Amino acid sequence: MKTAETSTRATSDGPPGYSHVYFVGAGPGDPELLTVRAVRLLALAEVVLVDDLAGEAVLALAPTARIIRVGKRGGCASTPQSFIERLMVREALAGRRVVRLKGGDCGVFGRLAEEIAALDAARVAWTVVPGITAGIAAAATLGVPLTDRERAHGVAFITGHGAEGADVDWSAFAHSRLTLVAYMAVARVGMLASNLLQAGMPIDTPVIAVERVGSMSKRNLASRLIDMEASFKASGLASPAVLLIGEAMRERALALMVGDAVRLPAQVG
Amino acid sequence: MKTAETSTRATSDGPPGYSHVYFVGAGPGDPELLTVRAVRLLALAEVVLVDDLAGEAVLALAPTARIIRVGKRGGCASTPQSFIERLMVREALAGRRVVRLKGGDCGVFGRLAEEIAALDAARVAWTVVPGITAGIAAAATLGVPLTDRERAHGVAFITGHGAEGADVDWSAFAHSRLTLVAYMAVARVGMLASNLLQAGMPIDTPVIAVERVGSMSKRNLASRLIDMEASFKASGLASPAVLLIGEAMRERALALMVGDAVRLPAQVG
Repeated sequence: MKTAETSTRATSDGPPGYSHVYFVGAGPGDPELLTVRAVRLLALAEVVLVDDLAGEAVLALAPTARIIRVGKRGGCASTPQSFIERLMVREALAGRRVVRLKGGDCGVFGRLAEEIAALDAARVAWTVVPGITAGIAAAATLGVPLTDRERAHGVAFITGHGAEGADVDWSAFAHSRLTLVAYMAVARVGMLASNLLQAGMPIDTPVIAVERVGSMSKRNLASRLIDMEASFKASGLASPAVLLIGEAMRERALALMVGDAVRLPAQVG
Repeated sequence: MKTAETSTRATSDGPPGYSHVYFVGAGPGDPELLTVRAVRLLALAEVVLVDDLAGEAVLALAPTARIIRVGKRGGCASTPQSFIERLMVREALAGRRVVRLKGGDCGVFGRLAEEIAALDAARVAWTVVPGITAGIAAAATLGVPLTDRERAHGVAFITGHGAEGADVDWSAFAHSRLTLVAYMAVARVGMLASNLLQAGMPIDTPVIAVERVGSMSKRNLASRLIDMEASFKASGLASPAVLLIGEAMRERALALMVGDAVRLPAQVG
């Protein structure tokens, strides 16, 4: 029998000296899109290790914490993964309340497994608090569904890095009838489009790019798959951005292309 | 040029008589996993139209609202989609603050497009507030990543309903090296497994089912793909549940199968 069950254990934070790290998804950067639990943990945090993608407005919710920036792209040098892990373990073993804050959701392109392995090796307890990943936030700001009964049986989150890999089955994506959400794809827009086109995805497949999704300066760009590289380059599309590709985007992409603001969603007051 | 841009318009809620519906993702049922914006909108709501999957604890955050249950499975009869849409339009046009609350995220298997089309036709404004979808919540409770640099290049959210469709390319999923997250799959576990096995997915692919993910009574079950139907049936797996399928689940599935509680995540206090 290959089945096992666990019951929910509602433990406390344990005895004095107990070490614990909270992995917290920061969502797309808008503090209103944090979960209630994330806000509570940030308010209590003594140390916050934070990536580039978690915005300043989110960090303001941890006013008493020491903020340690361990991003991989901002500034002059990237922080090695092993350094992040050692630092996290050291702070936790010192008995401090550590929040490991990552943009979006920790389990979606967040290198969560590596950091959990480091904590397990050091016998530090941990909890993962989910967050709103950029693709889901982007779809909400546009008012498009990621899935649709008629046109998108599901949704796949992939990265632009995959565009370089020879081991990716592009025809799978081209024929899957899933909405594709591509992260970290701005530098590889051309490769992504040509892979999908060569695999047989229709040339007029609608694409919407959402730049800086959680910020006040977010921007939406729409195109067809065949024009994607040229039009997004002409518009100066920059990271961070997510691309939403598929038939479920059709009406909204058309509305964006003709500049029809009427049917775009209102902003929350 | 097939590109268009929109700027962010930070509008107010408009003049008196302005009609507006807020689509709000309720997350997996734990009120602590609502977004801050969702909590604020629920507190101000006058009418909440709610699906079955949004739990009672979430509804307690809308103490002054009239709660209208429009679920499709609970109780004796399902609510026709057209009735939900008419009701939503009527309440909004009456000038009431309407929240349309859906379990998880509104854009992931939430029939969002149909309801937005109904509002557009009636010239009712709307906003979508994203939520934590069940698959992301399930991965967080287990402390597993949905993506992994080595073993899962991305993640796909699909439904068990697809298991019945002849038009689904199962070999795409079987060879995609994505983590598969299957919603509404409990009644179709056998069909899902056989489709994936026939398409060439390895028999020992790890699977974890998370039942009632946002509730205190949640339960985790682990299996191999080949044993999935028998073992989940023997354990009495019941809806709602999500299945997480793929190599990124391997260590956690093994830990669950041998009953090793040590490496399971602690609960948030």
